[in-house]
Amino acid sequence: MAEPATEAAPVVTAAILVIGDEILSGRTKDKNIGYIAEYCTNIGIDIREVRIVPDVEGEIVAAVNALRARYDHVFSTGGIGPTHDDITADSMAKAFGVGIDHDPRAVAILTDHYAAGQLNEARMRMARIPDGADLILNKVSKAPGFTLGNVHVMAGVPSIMQAMFDEVAAKIPTGAKMLSRTVPVGMGEGRIAKQLGEIQLEYPDVSIGSYPKMLDGSFATDIVLRSRDEGRLDQAARAVEAMVAAMMQANG
Amino acid sequence: MAEPATEAAPVVTAAILVIGDEILSGRTKDKNIGYIAEYCTNIGIDIREVRIVPDVEGEIVAAVNALRARYDHVFSTGGIGPTHDDITADSMAKAFGVGIDHDPRAVAILTDHYAAGQLNEARMRMARIPDGADLILNKVSKAPGFTLGNVHVMAGVPSIMQAMFDEVAAKIPTGAKMLSRTVPVGMGEGRIAKQLGEIQLEYPDVSIGSYPKMLDGSFATDIVLRSRDEGRLDQAARAVEAMVAAMMQANG
Repeated sequence: MAEPATEAAPVVTAAILVIGDEILSGRTKDKNIGYIAEYCTNIGIDIREVRIVPDVEGEIVAAVNALRARYDHVFSTGGIGPTHDDITADSMAKAFGVGIDHDPRAVAILTDHYAAGQLNEARMRMARIPDGADLILNKVSKAPGFTLGNVHVMAGVPSIMQAMFDEVAAKIPTGAKMLSRTVPVGMGEGRIAKQLGEIQLEYPDVSIGSYPKMLDGSFATDIVLRSRDEGRLDQAARAVEAMVAAMMQANG
Repeated sequence: MAEPATEAAPVVTAAILVIGDEILSGRTKDKNIGYIAEYCTNIGIDIREVRIVPDVEGEIVAAVNALRARYDHVFSTGGIGPTHDDITADSMAKAFGVGIDHDPRAVAILTDHYAAGQLNEARMRMARIPDGADLILNKVSKAPGFTLGNVHVMAGVPSIMQAMFDEVAAKIPTGAKMLSRTVPVGMGEGRIAKQLGEIQLEYPDVSIGSYPKMLDGSFATDIVLRSRDEGRLDQAARAVEAMVAAMMQANG
């Protein structure tokens, strides 16, 4: 469902790139995708794609290059800590074809944070930032993320990622916000599918989704309408509500 | 970390393809990725990549064609219901270049399930199955998924997806199971990163991951070792445990 952009508030698109063997093995259940997706919807950024890749340089490079060419922004999570399996910063430098070294700004942050003797060689790895990147501050545990071009590289630990995402979101321009209305329906979607499709045809500029769920062993449905035009959205929502009421009566 | 396959039990790879605008908008938080990933690890299938794409035919086709060419199996979830936004079956047929029509086996299942007059045109859409596909039975709500080539197409509602995944898992050959050991460490990973990297170099055939987490406001770490060779895995785990004990003593 393509939405027309206006000059005042263009549509801003983004992808999420989750980096980590522990997500692919199922050992850790990802919490960052849902968080970033909901946050972006609320500030007017459309997440169009998500990829999860392992801690393998070639996979990270290929995914970030595919995504950054296609969307306005890429939000990556994971792989920026001090251990041998944290290879995201080096992979990003490689993807962009730039150098990477200890960044004086990042070194200053870590020097300030760690007690004398605690800033060992491994922790200094967290100050390795690709050339030309801006830092993303981390108020939780100090070691920064970074923004390189249109790619925002953040930690994987949810509390740290969330603090970093606040920093990122405050800096990037956002677009026209996608508005939504939900019409809950106390029956399976199969009963209203035909009528719903007809309403979708009448409102091609409103994206109408039908999401079945199990409630106490039987089906219920949420009809979710989305548009950047509040007037059209309300009209379409009223059409769905009227249709559902008529179907309830017919079935009742 | 490449793992050598043995003749008896080859490495079986797979990708997950989640289809649905509601996941990308953050409205629905995905529960299927973590479930499938953990299940696959337990039965000896390596999930190597995950993609989440919107309910857009071109996106579904491009993603499934990229993934099915690269991995032994693709598990897709979402978009096989009766409403206008359920376009997965048609998109899969397009990706494979095959026809799609009402499948007599699926029609029989639905005819048997629905009371007279309830099997309307929309619900009959759920019997549209690409040519050459095998059905995946659905004991929860009957409308089947399908296997087309190496792609297993399942529902998005978690309880239904899980029932379908049991059917799929029972039919596909699995590989040598990836074994794992977890060593919990009561300190931040920065303190043990150098020593851990040295152990990784000694055990290149064991994948060693370091996963920081926040516990009551301070960092703890899980060291996760993975290998298909139990002997090597135990040796590497003992090396990590000994290193951690030595570090605790040094820090204590």
